[in-house]
Amino acid sequence: MALVNNGDDTLGMKITSQKNAMRKLENNLSKSHISNSTPMKGRGDTKKQTKLGIEISKDENYSEWYVQVITKAEMIEYYDISGCYVLRPWSYAIWEFIQEWFDEEIKKLGVKNCYFPLFVSQSALEKEKTHISDFAPEVAWITRAGQSDLAEAIAIRPTSETVMYPSYAKWVQSHRDLPIKLNQWCNVVRWEFKHPTPFLRTREFLWQEGHTAFQSKDEAEDEVFKILDLYAQIYIDLLAIPVIKGRKTEKENFAGGDFTATVEAYVPVNGRGIQGATSHHLGQNFSKMFNISFEDPNGGGKIYAWQNSWGISTRTIGALVMIHGDNCGLVLPPRVATIQMIIVPVGINAQTKDEQKTALIEKAKEINNKLMDASIRAELDIRDHISPGWKFNHWELKGVPVRIEIGPKDLANNQVTCVIRYSGEKRTIPIDGLASKCKDMLEEIHYSMYNRILEVRESHTKIVLEWNDFRSFLDQKFILLSPFCGRIECEDEIKKESMRGEENDPQAPAMGAKTLCIPLEQPEIPLPTNCINKNCPEKPQFFALFGRSY
Amino acid sequence: MALVNNGDDTLGMKITSQKNAMRKLENNLSKSHISNSTPMKGRGDTKKQTKLGIEISKDENYSEWYVQVITKAEMIEYYDISGCYVLRPWSYAIWEFIQEWFDEEIKKLGVKNCYFPLFVSQSALEKEKTHISDFAPEVAWITRAGQSDLAEAIAIRPTSETVMYPSYAKWVQSHRDLPIKLNQWCNVVRWEFKHPTPFLRTREFLWQEGHTAFQSKDEAEDEVFKILDLYAQIYIDLLAIPVIKGRKTEKENFAGGDFTATVEAYVPVNGRGIQGATSHHLGQNFSKMFNISFEDPNGGGKIYAWQNSWGISTRTIGALVMIHGDNCGLVLPPRVATIQMIIVPVGINAQTKDEQKTALIEKAKEINNKLMDASIRAELDIRDHISPGWKFNHWELKGVPVRIEIGPKDLANNQVTCVIRYSGEKRTIPIDGLASKCKDMLEEIHYSMYNRILEVRESHTKIVLEWNDFRSFLDQKFILLSPFCGRIECEDEIKKESMRGEENDPQAPAMGAKTLCIPLEQPEIPLPTNCINKNCPEKPQFFALFGRSY
Repeated sequence: MALVNNGDDTLGMKITSQKNAMRKLENNLSKSHISNSTPMKGRGDTKKQTKLGIEISKDENYSEWYVQVITKAEMIEYYDISGCYVLRPWSYAIWEFIQEWFDEEIKKLGVKNCYFPLFVSQSALEKEKTHISDFAPEVAWITRAGQSDLAEAIAIRPTSETVMYPSYAKWVQSHRDLPIKLNQWCNVVRWEFKHPTPFLRTREFLWQEGHTAFQSKDEAEDEVFKILDLYAQIYIDLLAIPVIKGRKTEKENFAGGDFTATVEAYVPVNGRGIQGATSHHLGQNFSKMFNISFEDPNGGGKIYAWQNSWGISTRTIGALVMIHGDNCGLVLPPRVATIQMIIVPVGINAQTKDEQKTALIEKAKEINNKLMDASIRAELDIRDHISPGWKFNHWELKGVPVRIEIGPKDLANNQVTCVIRYSGEKRTIPIDGLASKCKDMLEEIHYSMYNRILEVRESHTKIVLEWNDFRSFLDQKFILLSPFCGRIECEDEIKKESMRGEENDPQAPAMGAKTLCIPLEQPEIPLPTNCINKNCPEKPQFFALFGRSY
Repeated sequence: MALVNNGDDTLGMKITSQKNAMRKLENNLSKSHISNSTPMKGRGDTKKQTKLGIEISKDENYSEWYVQVITKAEMIEYYDISGCYVLRPWSYAIWEFIQEWFDEEIKKLGVKNCYFPLFVSQSALEKEKTHISDFAPEVAWITRAGQSDLAEAIAIRPTSETVMYPSYAKWVQSHRDLPIKLNQWCNVVRWEFKHPTPFLRTREFLWQEGHTAFQSKDEAEDEVFKILDLYAQIYIDLLAIPVIKGRKTEKENFAGGDFTATVEAYVPVNGRGIQGATSHHLGQNFSKMFNISFEDPNGGGKIYAWQNSWGISTRTIGALVMIHGDNCGLVLPPRVATIQMIIVPVGINAQTKDEQKTALIEKAKEINNKLMDASIRAELDIRDHISPGWKFNHWELKGVPVRIEIGPKDLANNQVTCVIRYSGEKRTIPIDGLASKCKDMLEEIHYSMYNRILEVRESHTKIVLEWNDFRSFLDQKFILLSPFCGRIECEDEIKKESMRGEENDPQAPAMGAKTLCIPLEQPEIPLPTNCINKNCPEKPQFFALFGRSY
């Protein structure tokens, strides 16, 4: 392994707040591309020299580690408007893989893509009261165009229920106009005032939002879980991240909806849960407000449509970074890696004869072509102004799943050396039949990455029936299955009671536990008679999954 | 042909302004889906009955015709914010075909997708003075979030030069960091105060914007025309629309750029030109403003990068509607048609025996499957609550390239009847080998549609050397190749002098001619000594293509 941590001197550094760390990095790392495009040694100009590698360990300060990974791996560029970030090709490509897969799947379900406006009038936005009360504090308003003040302020969509449903009302005149199954890939804006984090909490983000309307409640509910399964597949099959499927509690429900189904992932470094994507059954709440109705074909009078909305966002990328990244940087699961295998010729030095060098490069090109012919996203790094060691660092930092080294000895033995990013494992593989072995290797890596996270999660998931255990396991980075009555007030109390600093992590804000979900798959033991909240007089309704959370 | 024009009574109607027509239609047509989802006859409820077909001819009033086509073909839904429209799946799918093709092509050129923020700070926006002076009057400003006034107003991108280039400045530290070739598919906002038209002039629209930076002017200029060729291919190969490639004159140049290359199409109904897409060479104007620079590897000091930006938008869809649509509605070129062939069983009536009906439906399904197996986007319309005649109207209105009718007689003869949308031609085709014949037919339709428009355009393009001819041919819906000095003041004069109402079209605003482009391919005759503007003292520099224009 060639990665040299040049940041040893900063490893002991104490940073008193996440905010300071972020600010410092915004200043220092904005020029981080310098080091990524220039060899470590021999740079003679006067520009500030920053370190190539990650300068802090994930365990020590994951907030700073996160910022370093996303900037140094060239995923994110900072921007001069707070809460807004540039998604560079290296991260955007992950989104494209997700889009491609999901888009095809929803089209199989009969969903069609469309595009509704970015803007919402105040009157439409405020039609569903519960809904708007949740979103209003974060809505951005346009009040001026050119030099003219607008007669009425116009909102930017925080989500598109209120944008779309007036049209749905026009389109639904008969039961034959249902179902409507529309989706759009778009940007939305939620002007959060909390501290922003790239991918995870941003003022603008990209997502898809599906909005469907059905004749019957059953059809709608059925779709909620079909979509949830697709979301789970995105995490499991593309991102190599295990998720738990469940329903949200009343407190965590989508504003204006009947119930919310969710996939929740576990972040090992800090033991937090992270919401992966949500699929909402809206019941008839919106259809009544917007009058999306039809005559009962059986003569039963006016019926309001049953609606769903569902979305997954670029937050997925943040989850991927947090969950798979390590002290050397990003670790990409193969199925969403722009470059799955990077080929680096090695062992060339000043003494190497020209014909040896040429033969090596030719063989490397041949291998690259063979891999690409086998639909492996391979790339050859034959830049000759930088050293192999620098290239190793660079591609490790960027998380490429496999590095293939080929040197004079390999050439002589008709073999290559593969180095697997997530495990560091080295394998020597004959060039004959390489492409097929590489395809298998990428599949194997996917499953191994998945299983590794699954194991950590399973060893940090516990059924907890007593309040004292609850607190203590939470602080040991566990997520907890506990009996719960389901009431909002009780959840508020649990959050408050479990709120305190995480002892091992002075940077983290004191954070209480909340429900991640009510898992669809409940523990097999009988439900106890008491709610996990020792002061709660109500009987538990189910086991809920509790945890600190993003 | 089964289309019955139910709008005969309105054909003679005089509408005094486009605006009135639009408003009337916004009211009436917002419920147009009623008729599209319900048979024409036998509707017994009390809801307003609107007409299925297009109620006005394209020649008579193309503005109203346009509105009817886009609403009745279910391409557009009107929205409660002026200048914003809903792109329904039937139109959005055209955009998806364009995206899919173009995205693949630019990736072959090494362009990568990314995403930059929707928002721009005032200071970044105003950095390039010429650029902002052009866009400032149309910029939408956010001044409030939730209940809080923002300390500084934030603009919504009208285009992303000023959003992206501060990052480019960070990324370019050495000549090795170039070229940068990025693209994003996104929405932009230009708060136009002119009368909006769906697809053609809207306050928000979708596009792709490519932004590239090179070491040398040559590389950049080379790319400008490579991209222009791709834009031409979108029109020619996907939309079946001929285009003329050229450069913009100084007056029509992109604000802040060195020169603009463009593809221009011709709209037969009103003889106007329509700008199809533009590819700008920005020179070093922006790189100097934003300091996108590197050290000359040959020791020549600081060099500013050479930049391009290029974009194509959902305006393409409007061009398609205007150019190919006819009095029966939309006409889709096969390569961008969601449904290329619609199969309609016919000849079933009350006397038809059940087994006959079943056999017919089974055969129709078999045909549908065969076509789909051959990668033809076929669909089967076996709805039994509406008549074949209604289905004919419906799918003609929506512009499906081919209708396949199959009735008991066809079944007996092992054949189908194909009706080609754009020409109305009927063909009887044996079921054996149908898929292969259909594939050929779709190709043939593409080229025929293209050639038909090309012929109209060629018969309405004229080399004009005298001012008197200029005016008269313009009014006869010609576009004109005329000698031109290239000066802004001269172009202003030509526009002013040619401004008057189009006699045959009282709805059209009086409009002067402008240059569509300076065609790359110049007429083969020698350039005359006088500019087309009889008052111009300067010598012509080239033939420019003049016309009324969108």
